[in-house]
Amino acid sequence: MNLKTIKEASEIINNNTIDFGIEEVNFINSVGRVLKEDIVADRDFPPFNRVSMDGIAFSLEAFNSGQRTFKIEGVQAAGSPQLTLKNKNNCIESMTGAMLPIGCDVVIQYELLSIEDGEAKIDLDTVKSFQNIHKKGLDRVCGDILISKNTLISPAEIGVVATVGKNLVKVAKQPSVIIVSTGNELVEVDESPKEHQIRRSNVYTVISLLEKLQIKAETAHILDDKEILKSKINSFLNEYDVLIFSGAVSKGKFDFIPEVLMELGVEKLFHKVKQRPGKPFWFGTKTCAEGSRRKKTVFAFPGNPVSTFVNCLKYFYPWHQKSVGLNFENKIKGILSEDFFFKPSLTYFLQVKLKEKEGKLYATPVLGKGSGDLANLVEADGFLELPDDRTNFLKGEAFPVLLYRPF
Amino acid sequence: MNLKTIKEASEIINNNTIDFGIEEVNFINSVGRVLKEDIVADRDFPPFNRVSMDGIAFSLEAFNSGQRTFKIEGVQAAGSPQLTLKNKNNCIESMTGAMLPIGCDVVIQYELLSIEDGEAKIDLDTVKSFQNIHKKGLDRVCGDILISKNTLISPAEIGVVATVGKNLVKVAKQPSVIIVSTGNELVEVDESPKEHQIRRSNVYTVISLLEKLQIKAETAHILDDKEILKSKINSFLNEYDVLIFSGAVSKGKFDFIPEVLMELGVEKLFHKVKQRPGKPFWFGTKTCAEGSRRKKTVFAFPGNPVSTFVNCLKYFYPWHQKSVGLNFENKIKGILSEDFFFKPSLTYFLQVKLKEKEGKLYATPVLGKGSGDLANLVEADGFLELPDDRTNFLKGEAFPVLLYRPF
Repeated sequence: MNLKTIKEASEIINNNTIDFGIEEVNFINSVGRVLKEDIVADRDFPPFNRVSMDGIAFSLEAFNSGQRTFKIEGVQAAGSPQLTLKNKNNCIESMTGAMLPIGCDVVIQYELLSIEDGEAKIDLDTVKSFQNIHKKGLDRVCGDILISKNTLISPAEIGVVATVGKNLVKVAKQPSVIIVSTGNELVEVDESPKEHQIRRSNVYTVISLLEKLQIKAETAHILDDKEILKSKINSFLNEYDVLIFSGAVSKGKFDFIPEVLMELGVEKLFHKVKQRPGKPFWFGTKTCAEGSRRKKTVFAFPGNPVSTFVNCLKYFYPWHQKSVGLNFENKIKGILSEDFFFKPSLTYFLQVKLKEKEGKLYATPVLGKGSGDLANLVEADGFLELPDDRTNFLKGEAFPVLLYRPF
Repeated sequence: MNLKTIKEASEIINNNTIDFGIEEVNFINSVGRVLKEDIVADRDFPPFNRVSMDGIAFSLEAFNSGQRTFKIEGVQAAGSPQLTLKNKNNCIESMTGAMLPIGCDVVIQYELLSIEDGEAKIDLDTVKSFQNIHKKGLDRVCGDILISKNTLISPAEIGVVATVGKNLVKVAKQPSVIIVSTGNELVEVDESPKEHQIRRSNVYTVISLLEKLQIKAETAHILDDKEILKSKINSFLNEYDVLIFSGAVSKGKFDFIPEVLMELGVEKLFHKVKQRPGKPFWFGTKTCAEGSRRKKTVFAFPGNPVSTFVNCLKYFYPWHQKSVGLNFENKIKGILSEDFFFKPSLTYFLQVKLKEKEGKLYATPVLGKGSGDLANLVEADGFLELPDDRTNFLKGEAFPVLLYRPF
């Protein structure tokens, strides 16, 4: 058998990523998307010497010549044009966010003043030049790159994008994806299964996993009939960038997927990976004739729920991330909280519950009843990736973890 | 000054959470929502003795009496009604996911067989009872609680919900929220600010922060005019469950929010917290007259971008989580990667970049230029919460971290 290791499988997949291009979206809908342009400061940050405490603005020179009482000349509000101090011995009440009035270079907050009869009194020995003033250009200067291309947009980026006036932002376009279940045993969620049937569930799990990547996938179901499979898959290959299958990739009499895909010109890049669960994973691509948009990618996952789940996280997620230009070098690890033993020379994806304690991530095995036990996914938070060249995994050792639940 | 500590402020807020009730949504739209019913197994998991390898099913008794060659009687496909083995010395080809045929109690995979002339030959010394059979009810039995009420729904739960046929699920209803900016200095994102103006950005940041909680908030902007403020806020108090303000809560001449809120009958529960940034935070509630739906909650955050951001994470998030029934006891900590010094006796929210290494979360300070420096939020991943009773924070110590960027 020509099984790939998970490393080989990942390499093949990551050598087959696809740039799906760029689209513009309204900035407020861009969270979770990958930025495809640098966001540049259109002005200095702040754009003017900005008052950062509510109080009075005056001239340091007047203060240093011994003056402690300042006649109030006016009020500089945030959002009002800049005032000018007419008499350099006076002051102007100035609000947080306002422009510093011309002729002033110190702001002292109300908490340190007394105001009476239109005069402000200070009881301080020294003040500093530009005290309580956020200086023009201190944070960033006009032209600075504030957010680099290929950043994953989060709420922190949204404020910056708004500030520079980018109502539309360029982001990575998403692939169009269809998730296909097969199998005569499957009925719809709102149907009552007969004794020998079960409801469709994997496709919905995968839909939600892809939604986390901001992909809106479609789904289809095909019965175990080779001719129907072939005709439907053929049209999916024309319509979609990515086909994800769940099931029908093993040795069963009705496991037509690998055969049908090859008959339709999809090149098999591998079938079967040295891992548990998820071993009979089939991966391939089809380079379309000229005129067609681009290469098609097929992830045919085994149909057991835990197999589909772990393979989607392990293989589809990084493929997508690299395709849209993200670089996640920071692979998280979890520390095994008890000894674990696994004999077969396969990479084992151990279901674990992750718990943080004093900055350390502990992974506790949550053993299920195998790849068919989808209810066990509810108990766990992720999969610890135990390498295939060992059988004993010791408490305290750290291994990569595929996390599917947010902290 | 009657400043609250962050602990006191959090306690007051968390004593004022509100149950917004329950609604039913289509299960596929329920990711990120909080489940408000137990999800119960409607059948055993698996619902029948399920074949877990493609191969042949036969009787252990026949094997144990020495038989190694079995005539193939038929094919048991997944999704087909259960067959019965007619002759107990024969076998039935049986596919993964199929019902185990009546009369069989072993399945041997194709990899260990040779098939010729309608007969399957096995070369094995022993087989085990129910080998390669996922026994009815092994994972869960009918009536078991598969997912408990008050679980945050993730893709792992979606598959289970689908399997038990819950097309509609009961989830916590969300509060209706309006996010209000004030200040004459603010213009819209698609406008060109004059020299003394800047664009609105905080409200959009908060919108995206709330979207992560699956709340679709609305926004409004009000100029610094007390009468207009009063009239608009009054109608918002009638229309929305929660009002979030950004700005106008400090000592400025146009900081009308606290005053207006109190005039409108919103009870101040505190104003100002011993923290930096975010100190002038104002929090209050209004109990509405009978007939009105329920209590109104007002979070009036200071207007500096970093202040609004950290306060939304520190106060609004836990308030919402408790309101919808989530219990996040697992407060994450980050390990300080270098010494840090902060003198004022305030809780300091230090901006940090979080990096995982061998299962440990290291937090490296990313110092910005203060609470107005929104561009610095892009460089960091979270805020390390440094307590107010110390000035020296040492490398290697772990402190709670408010994380705003996924791993």
